[in-house]
Amino acid sequence: MQSIHYVSNMIRFNHLKSRILLSKSCAHQICRHFNSLRDPDVFDYDLVVIGGAPGGLVAAKEAASLGAKVVVADYEAPILAGASWGLRGSGANVGSIQKKLMHQAALLGDALQDAQSFGWKISGKTEHSWQKLTDALQAHLQSLNSTNKQELRDKNISYISGHARFESSRILHVATSQEEVALSAKYFLIAVEGFPKYPDIPGALDYGITSDDIFTLKHPPGKSLIVGAGCSGLECSGALNVLGYETTVMFKDSIPLRGCDQQMASIVKAEMESRGVRFLLECLPESIEKNHTGKLQILYLNKTKQKFSTEFDTILFAIGRRSLINELQLERAGVQTDLTNGKIIAKNEQTNVPHIYAIGEVLYGFPDQTPVATQAGRLLSRRLFGGSRETVDYENIPTTIFTPLEYGFVGLSEEEAHQRYGGSEIEVYHSFYKPPEYSVSKKSTSNCYLKVVSLRDADQKVLGMHFIGPQAGEIIQGFSAAMKCGLTVESLINTVGIHPTLAEEFTKINITKRSGRDPTPASCCS
Amino acid sequence: MQSIHYVSNMIRFNHLKSRILLSKSCAHQICRHFNSLRDPDVFDYDLVVIGGAPGGLVAAKEAASLGAKVVVADYEAPILAGASWGLRGSGANVGSIQKKLMHQAALLGDALQDAQSFGWKISGKTEHSWQKLTDALQAHLQSLNSTNKQELRDKNISYISGHARFESSRILHVATSQEEVALSAKYFLIAVEGFPKYPDIPGALDYGITSDDIFTLKHPPGKSLIVGAGCSGLECSGALNVLGYETTVMFKDSIPLRGCDQQMASIVKAEMESRGVRFLLECLPESIEKNHTGKLQILYLNKTKQKFSTEFDTILFAIGRRSLINELQLERAGVQTDLTNGKIIAKNEQTNVPHIYAIGEVLYGFPDQTPVATQAGRLLSRRLFGGSRETVDYENIPTTIFTPLEYGFVGLSEEEAHQRYGGSEIEVYHSFYKPPEYSVSKKSTSNCYLKVVSLRDADQKVLGMHFIGPQAGEIIQGFSAAMKCGLTVESLINTVGIHPTLAEEFTKINITKRSGRDPTPASCCS
Repeated sequence: MQSIHYVSNMIRFNHLKSRILLSKSCAHQICRHFNSLRDPDVFDYDLVVIGGAPGGLVAAKEAASLGAKVVVADYEAPILAGASWGLRGSGANVGSIQKKLMHQAALLGDALQDAQSFGWKISGKTEHSWQKLTDALQAHLQSLNSTNKQELRDKNISYISGHARFESSRILHVATSQEEVALSAKYFLIAVEGFPKYPDIPGALDYGITSDDIFTLKHPPGKSLIVGAGCSGLECSGALNVLGYETTVMFKDSIPLRGCDQQMASIVKAEMESRGVRFLLECLPESIEKNHTGKLQILYLNKTKQKFSTEFDTILFAIGRRSLINELQLERAGVQTDLTNGKIIAKNEQTNVPHIYAIGEVLYGFPDQTPVATQAGRLLSRRLFGGSRETVDYENIPTTIFTPLEYGFVGLSEEEAHQRYGGSEIEVYHSFYKPPEYSVSKKSTSNCYLKVVSLRDADQKVLGMHFIGPQAGEIIQGFSAAMKCGLTVESLINTVGIHPTLAEEFTKINITKRSGRDPTPASCCS
Repeated sequence: MQSIHYVSNMIRFNHLKSRILLSKSCAHQICRHFNSLRDPDVFDYDLVVIGGAPGGLVAAKEAASLGAKVVVADYEAPILAGASWGLRGSGANVGSIQKKLMHQAALLGDALQDAQSFGWKISGKTEHSWQKLTDALQAHLQSLNSTNKQELRDKNISYISGHARFESSRILHVATSQEEVALSAKYFLIAVEGFPKYPDIPGALDYGITSDDIFTLKHPPGKSLIVGAGCSGLECSGALNVLGYETTVMFKDSIPLRGCDQQMASIVKAEMESRGVRFLLECLPESIEKNHTGKLQILYLNKTKQKFSTEFDTILFAIGRRSLINELQLERAGVQTDLTNGKIIAKNEQTNVPHIYAIGEVLYGFPDQTPVATQAGRLLSRRLFGGSRETVDYENIPTTIFTPLEYGFVGLSEEEAHQRYGGSEIEVYHSFYKPPEYSVSKKSTSNCYLKVVSLRDADQKVLGMHFIGPQAGEIIQGFSAAMKCGLTVESLINTVGIHPTLAEEFTKINITKRSGRDPTPASCCS
């Protein structure tokens, strides 16, 4: 009966004032027929969101709360058996929650050690149960997913599960498991979710998993290889290492986190190495096979093309994401895509077809971060249905990487600032700092470091802020709002610190790289 | 021999070009004699800092780094036997570190519980050792104190330990344990540290301790009464409760945290109650005595003057601080003080005597917070020696209270905004939120709440931000920089969130109190 509900929402042509239930076979023909009769200014929906990626869902909710009639058409693709959350996009959002919870599990592992320095006596042994963690996370993620679906219903947003493709720039066809439905809309928003990529090498699909799958793994990962040293790769490897699994990261560059500030990326790597993560730099996997002991044997090349072979229990790929927009038949809608990577070209999320928008991973040159997409979705709906003119500020996107000592940043890296303004025009303030808690638990503070990149003129406008340490994401968020309001070094150092916090270290900056002075403080109170 | 060092720094009258070692008995007379010979424009020091309170020490360091010749004259008073850190003021600063570490011990106690939800198996029992915690904290605080003294030496700041009093507006006498020295200076800065107050009731001094003493207690506190429900009182009681001690808070008002936003203070109280802290509202202690079992018996009155008597192991007063400025003989320098409370009257830290400044707790109407004082000290030295004109912005002082679920805030409370602008001119955005970690560890999110108070006009300038939850201090710091840069609600909601963090909740505000809508989200992703 559910299909009737869907269809009743889908093909309620306003000029017929009737509801039609179509079988899959005839839907296509009848739609074409009615299309010719349609009033071009009357649509089934104000907004059709294609795909359930976070930016699309937020846009849908925002549009509905502004009074728009909205439908989400999404294909629920299971990745691993048992891994289908439905709402894959909210799944991607859920993916962020998953990585945060994995990070929390790692932090709590650290806390068990720290607690003993602060007087907590633990009489027995502590060890980690993979099963208990994954059960807890899956239970939470599943409840989250059903809450998210309920939220769509509460906001009167229709939901249809099926493969979508454009029939024309005004008509979208969605093939559900039972029938094909046609939707017309004032606006379309393409927000198709991405899937992690596999490398094109023998054995990758058979034996490898991706960062999306790690918590559907039914057994502990054991000795693990993570291929890729972007955010996902480092987050997975950092957490697995603290949870007690021997962890190696293989990547093709010489410094991880390509595109990020290189000094900060090096410090992140140094911190992870100090905690036991092994790095294989400038290496590329060649093939994977299962050996006679049942382990995974990976063959890889280093930069001088020497071959090596190593055995792992789990091999995880974190080498980027791809999105399934080929199936959308964008050419029928006349939407332009980039020739090299097939991604959609848009300005302020608007494609060359003015009433078709796109958001998130499907976009050419779009930062691959959930919050950017959700912000873009929210602002887009406010522009379409709320009379706003605000667009996303792509300049100052704050982010954080849970490695598990976090690296949070907003704005330009030192390299970007150099490139954009020239070395003589920028100033870089930097400082190590000593969290007071670290002294008691005798943890190394050698990678607790922050950096502020600014212009060098009188105003010293802040261009970028970078922080490695606990709670970096919580710390950077407010400063990113400050940068949005034109933060200068003068305002920053004249902000009263909250004592004792780590965030206050930003208000204490006074040493520039140019000065050559030692940025190491004598104590946590210096 | 140390006295020679001090004196050589103290009484090196420039016009004599010689060094004089004085005995305590004759110092006073000789100084008077030389004073009449002094060149009025030539001083022993550019800056004499009286007292070792944090604001004074920061001013001293900043002045020295700007090339000024500086001395700190401080009296090291032990409170409890074994509790003398020296540099009492850095002691007060150290006091903040102490409360943060106590907070951390409490958080780690929570973490032991949470860890089990995240898969960590702890086979034995967990319990807390007071001795181990206090030993660790004292070791850290002592090393901190010696580092701080070393820092003064490294910056060529002289240090003299003794009681100070003004001889005139230009001459300060300091009585060390061995002699009396006279100091002239271009500028004086009064930064005398405060001491916790005791109530004027029988037994208070004999049997009570204060928040400054709690970590010098040689034995576990046991069943504890905290008198006072300001920041210190709530922080102590919150931590003791989590460390496993039965804890009661007694205070004279009906809501804790007087002067803070009353709704937020009520939520802090509700959270503490939910965790087992007992509150005795509108009660006043009458007397304390030790009963035949060796316990402390407190007699107290409720608001209808009914008498009650209860037994505790430890009674701790957290009812405010007083400063010892009477001994300074300010009248000889002509410095005006307030008639009611004896505190110094100043504008931008400058007293009525233009070359005498004051900072921190000694000032009339000064916010009683270490970072305000340190900021004031830093900016004052920059004005005196660095050509700056910047003064402290007393409007937007950020702070946080570790209770142990933190309450962080900056700017106006809802009541203050009402009073200043009128209810029709302000807008209050608010939201509950659900930390994803809480779902896994099944912790209540009922007190996770935030509030943004803004003007109601087009710009919606942000007047105050309030956050109750983990890491509130880290979260509020950056937003306080944003408010310094003129944050508006529009800039705030257009700031891209860092997902998933708690700080991003501020960027998602969309429900006003005026709307009457339910501010409870469906999930952590809503």
